[in-house]
Amino acid sequence: MIDRLTRAIREIGNPTALGLDTRIEYIPEDFAVPYYKDGASVPDVISAFNSALLEGLRDVIPCVKIQAAYYEMLGPEGMSCLKKTLDAARCLGYVTITDAKRGDIGTTASAYSSAYIGETAQFPSDFITVNPYLGIDGVAPFLEDCRKTGRGIFALVKTSNPSSGEFQDLQSIDGRRLYEHVADKVSEWGRDLIGEEGYSSVGAVVGATYPLQGAALRGRMTHTFFLLPGYGAQGASASGLAGCFGNDGGGAVVNASRSLICAHQKSSTHKGGFVAAAREEAIRMRDCIREALKHARG
Amino acid sequence: MIDRLTRAIREIGNPTALGLDTRIEYIPEDFAVPYYKDGASVPDVISAFNSALLEGLRDVIPCVKIQAAYYEMLGPEGMSCLKKTLDAARCLGYVTITDAKRGDIGTTASAYSSAYIGETAQFPSDFITVNPYLGIDGVAPFLEDCRKTGRGIFALVKTSNPSSGEFQDLQSIDGRRLYEHVADKVSEWGRDLIGEEGYSSVGAVVGATYPLQGAALRGRMTHTFFLLPGYGAQGASASGLAGCFGNDGGGAVVNASRSLICAHQKSSTHKGGFVAAAREEAIRMRDCIREALKHARG
Repeated sequence: MIDRLTRAIREIGNPTALGLDTRIEYIPEDFAVPYYKDGASVPDVISAFNSALLEGLRDVIPCVKIQAAYYEMLGPEGMSCLKKTLDAARCLGYVTITDAKRGDIGTTASAYSSAYIGETAQFPSDFITVNPYLGIDGVAPFLEDCRKTGRGIFALVKTSNPSSGEFQDLQSIDGRRLYEHVADKVSEWGRDLIGEEGYSSVGAVVGATYPLQGAALRGRMTHTFFLLPGYGAQGASASGLAGCFGNDGGGAVVNASRSLICAHQKSSTHKGGFVAAAREEAIRMRDCIREALKHARG
Repeated sequence: MIDRLTRAIREIGNPTALGLDTRIEYIPEDFAVPYYKDGASVPDVISAFNSALLEGLRDVIPCVKIQAAYYEMLGPEGMSCLKKTLDAARCLGYVTITDAKRGDIGTTASAYSSAYIGETAQFPSDFITVNPYLGIDGVAPFLEDCRKTGRGIFALVKTSNPSSGEFQDLQSIDGRRLYEHVADKVSEWGRDLIGEEGYSSVGAVVGATYPLQGAALRGRMTHTFFLLPGYGAQGASASGLAGCFGNDGGGAVVNASRSLICAHQKSSTHKGGFVAAAREEAIRMRDCIREALKHARG
């Protein structure tokens, strides 16, 4: 899958993931009302909105990241909506990432892994995000499924939020910060899962909001693919991202959620509707990243 | 809720949580077959098994911990089963903990919090377990709901698994281990949420498999209630647990999952069935913990 991700990004020419952190408040009323009139529920409307975006962006975006929390908060019906959205994305050929940040002790981690990246996964995803706080035996069951199914994980290394440093930046007695310890372990865990394109199925989440740390991690983790959240609404810029990419201009995918799915809210008179607004923003973002990568590589 | 937990433990005289990490393999065939004959699904059978245990243990166990992963792996229907089990437990008067180990950046953490401990939670739980790797802004939305609803969290401090030390035991330059840093923050986060019984709604997960660290943490976090996993199948003993309790013999709840829900498997000729076997084991465990606490307090 990691090769598929690299190739999909290359083919479409855009290292962006469409972040479907969809909340009902984001959906234009004129889109939602007819569904409600037909007796649809909130998760139904979200499924329809997601599908419309996925269909409309297929030729400009290779990858989708679905934030599990927004579906979970809607209960079992929300989880059906997550499943439907994953199905829709897969049918359209997107590489799919479920952003669930799961992590538990061994036997329980196996259950999470089987839910998302196992052979008979109920929420089948090409990748799942994983929290490494419990150490290797919370991650090993995911690695086992990576080996069996070719799917992958992105482990949290340095997250994009303002307080990510509270624990992640703690300096240990050997001089390394906690996130550097985690980074080194993530590289190690992924060493025997490196694909033909040079990157491992064991990737890392590195907040685009910390460009200096991101660039340093890039040098430290040469075979690790980066998932970069924090672009747009969280404040990261394209120029700051460039250092997180490999010398080949690959090895990373930038997530954008609200800046794409809420693009229609920026201009209330957007005539083409939310899909056209998201497309326009996706193309603008793609061009910014391309420009920044060109600039960074001189 | 934290007061309710303390009082429920005192009334029933047993600081144990029934850990419903239910897998279909654990359920006796003679119980499951009639349900299947009636067209029931795997999650239906699990709901029925959980309900039978909850009804049968009501007078000996005050609290239930439900491991979300085992429900999630069964898809949306599994999540319905989680909801049903939470409902059943609440109706029977149990204090409920959903062990979900969620954690994300602020806006997303709000969604998780609202799913479990928010005012209109779809999976209403008295407590949810939370992963602190992202720092305070991944925890703050949970604290906000704790204030609004009186519900609580248990933040991972030192987990019960063999590799928990991989990151959690890293020593920082000020001499503290990572889990001690987390412990100090957890105490701080919970300071304004201390109930009448002297414990905060912001609790800590402390693996019963690490008795020395547990006892040291007890001294360090005097107002923090501990959730202690690792008893039984994971190897922790009652005597090792004693140091994790406060001087008043309170302030902690010990989770037991497989040792209770699979008690019937120990003796294939157990005549009373799985509920009787679980009851017997629950009483044995209660008496062991009582004895250990008595012994520890001289």
